[in-house]
Amino acid sequence: MTSTPLTFEQKLANYADLLVRVGVNLQPGGKLYLNAPIEAASLARLVAQKAWEAGAVDVDVHYADQQLSRLMYDHAPQAALDYAPAWATEQAMHQLDDGYVFLSIAGSDPDLLAGADQERIARRSKVTAQQGRAVSERMGAFEVNWSVGAMPVPSWAAKVFPELPLDEAISQLWEAIFTVSRADRPDPVEAWRAHTEQLARVRDHLNGRRYQALHFRNAHSDIVFGLADGHLWAGGAWPAQNGVAGVPNLPTDEVFTAPHRDRIDGYVRASKPLSVRGTLIEDIYMRFEAGRVVEATASRGQEVLTALLDTDEGARHLGELALVEYDSPVASTGVLFYNTLFDENAASHIALGRAYSFNVEGGTQPATGAQALTQAGANDSLIHVDWMIGTPDTDVDGVYPDGRRESVMRAGKWKF
Amino acid sequence: MTSTPLTFEQKLANYADLLVRVGVNLQPGGKLYLNAPIEAASLARLVAQKAWEAGAVDVDVHYADQQLSRLMYDHAPQAALDYAPAWATEQAMHQLDDGYVFLSIAGSDPDLLAGADQERIARRSKVTAQQGRAVSERMGAFEVNWSVGAMPVPSWAAKVFPELPLDEAISQLWEAIFTVSRADRPDPVEAWRAHTEQLARVRDHLNGRRYQALHFRNAHSDIVFGLADGHLWAGGAWPAQNGVAGVPNLPTDEVFTAPHRDRIDGYVRASKPLSVRGTLIEDIYMRFEAGRVVEATASRGQEVLTALLDTDEGARHLGELALVEYDSPVASTGVLFYNTLFDENAASHIALGRAYSFNVEGGTQPATGAQALTQAGANDSLIHVDWMIGTPDTDVDGVYPDGRRESVMRAGKWKF
Repeated sequence: MTSTPLTFEQKLANYADLLVRVGVNLQPGGKLYLNAPIEAASLARLVAQKAWEAGAVDVDVHYADQQLSRLMYDHAPQAALDYAPAWATEQAMHQLDDGYVFLSIAGSDPDLLAGADQERIARRSKVTAQQGRAVSERMGAFEVNWSVGAMPVPSWAAKVFPELPLDEAISQLWEAIFTVSRADRPDPVEAWRAHTEQLARVRDHLNGRRYQALHFRNAHSDIVFGLADGHLWAGGAWPAQNGVAGVPNLPTDEVFTAPHRDRIDGYVRASKPLSVRGTLIEDIYMRFEAGRVVEATASRGQEVLTALLDTDEGARHLGELALVEYDSPVASTGVLFYNTLFDENAASHIALGRAYSFNVEGGTQPATGAQALTQAGANDSLIHVDWMIGTPDTDVDGVYPDGRRESVMRAGKWKF
Repeated sequence: MTSTPLTFEQKLANYADLLVRVGVNLQPGGKLYLNAPIEAASLARLVAQKAWEAGAVDVDVHYADQQLSRLMYDHAPQAALDYAPAWATEQAMHQLDDGYVFLSIAGSDPDLLAGADQERIARRSKVTAQQGRAVSERMGAFEVNWSVGAMPVPSWAAKVFPELPLDEAISQLWEAIFTVSRADRPDPVEAWRAHTEQLARVRDHLNGRRYQALHFRNAHSDIVFGLADGHLWAGGAWPAQNGVAGVPNLPTDEVFTAPHRDRIDGYVRASKPLSVRGTLIEDIYMRFEAGRVVEATASRGQEVLTALLDTDEGARHLGELALVEYDSPVASTGVLFYNTLFDENAASHIALGRAYSFNVEGGTQPATGAQALTQAGANDSLIHVDWMIGTPDTDVDGVYPDGRRESVMRAGKWKF
């Protein structure tokens, strides 16, 4: 038996369908907020059509223009960097109240802000993070479903496939996205059901273990990640507070939890470059003592890395530890995406900054969540920046409170 | 003496500069809200840069995607047409409070909604007009400066120059826009100062006359437009309530006032097609009795015209009467723009629907304005749709309360 490969249009339609039906799992009568780069208008329109056809009563599309950010950093007066009126987040708050689901299309030039004034970028990033904090917290608590997909905008595709003509680079990047998102399957929704079931199995296994720490080692790293008390592993599909299950990232191959902010010791090296704030940071090395980054270097982008760590006290502690098999679908493409949505699914990773409230027992409770997070040792910060540490030679042990150990990963693969 | 013609880039830079410095007259420390079609991103970025350079502390760019409107009409459930949450206008209200200036870039496919369900469009248009009413009223009262420019998006350029290859059509439409906007002049800001001075002379002359009515005649029209009591002629540049003078439309060659809602009698034919709600309406003919449209036909788009008139009671009365010389700069290009921003400056015109509050004495007073407008006989409606009636053979007489007459226009030219 053979099956005909799908056409580009069929895969694109599948992808839009997955974002709506699997990613945010839009229900009939639901409302969708969609954020997309202007270069992704064709995908945004397809998603809008799928949403209308699914019975949406609102599809509110906001287009972002990355060039405007660069212009701001290069030309705006200093006062503009600090300007952040409270009313600017009111609409998002209303939409959260009204049960909108939130879908973002990622796609930006990884080098967009190369050469721009890092001090201005850091200052502005902090201001907007403070401004958006209440919204982020509600999103982080999964009041509603949200998800992130991507679109190969030209500048990004050119970075990923610099040796190809632009048209071909875009089409290659699309194919890579279709593959890792399972949009090339005849029944992608069913493929996602099976995949998230598999991630749930891993997540449930780890949640059953109640390890106190994970010991992570490879040729370039030796580090013990203490886990937050009452930590919860997440991954794959899970329900928002309204009970509807969605998948927050497409693709997703990770299971992840909250490390303990003060119980991390050792050193670790990045296994992939990190694209953050429009700059590539390469060969990151960090050493932790009692949870805090006490040494941090990079062969490129050191200035951005330092600015990131200096955002606030929490930026020097970790808010996420995620495990991914070394031969995950994203890793298997052999593509370096220069985009966290993809690259974080190619390798185990950690995130500087804020922990997700759903990664700690009781963390999403409206009245008591904040206290529960603090007591559990979950980190808090204005930032949350993932960077990749997993390699094919990574071994991970689970460590129980009494010191007993179990294999969690051997040579980058699950060992249970 | 000769002067070198400006390059395209120079004219484009001039145009962006005019929108910022003449149109909304952005002040140092000011804030700009910019609305633009996604196809106008290149112009939006240039305007943003000019605004930052002028010392703006915020440039808030919202991109509109006309294709999304079409998708909504074609695919959304009925409930979506009636969905209009009150919070959706809160941001504009905050920005009005905070003294933002508002700049719109026009540019859309005149045939965008051709063949779409007119009943759905009319229904949705009414809902959004009601939703945006408070914002429109504050804009109409010129609390802050606002202005409208344009960008030759491909679908529009193709409509205007169907015989040209697309690239050439776009570049021809740019040239036409540059010409009528004076962006091709060596010192466009000075050219605008002189032009608005000239319009002010006409405006002041008419304001001094206190005509009770204008009698408008050409080969296809014979109609008496009674004017609102205490009507005010506007045109060119004028100050917002904060005292800063801007030019609300670029280009502008009209002077205009509020007719009396109940004192219009006669018949009038359109001298140009009207592009409204994504449909072209051609050969409009209307007959008025006591201010009300009692007969309205069109050779194309009759359904849209009827739906427009049926919006509400005020949609069958007039809210604006504008006089434009037959050989105005826009008329002299010989181009039919299929866009009111331009076409209304090629010919005298009238508007169905709401009158502008600044066209009546006391109309913009916060507490008493609404009453002043009603007492003066200014019309009210959810709509305001201009259509062109001026021709080279148009004669206009000013009629005093005692019946005396004076020539205002002869053969489409000012007669004073």
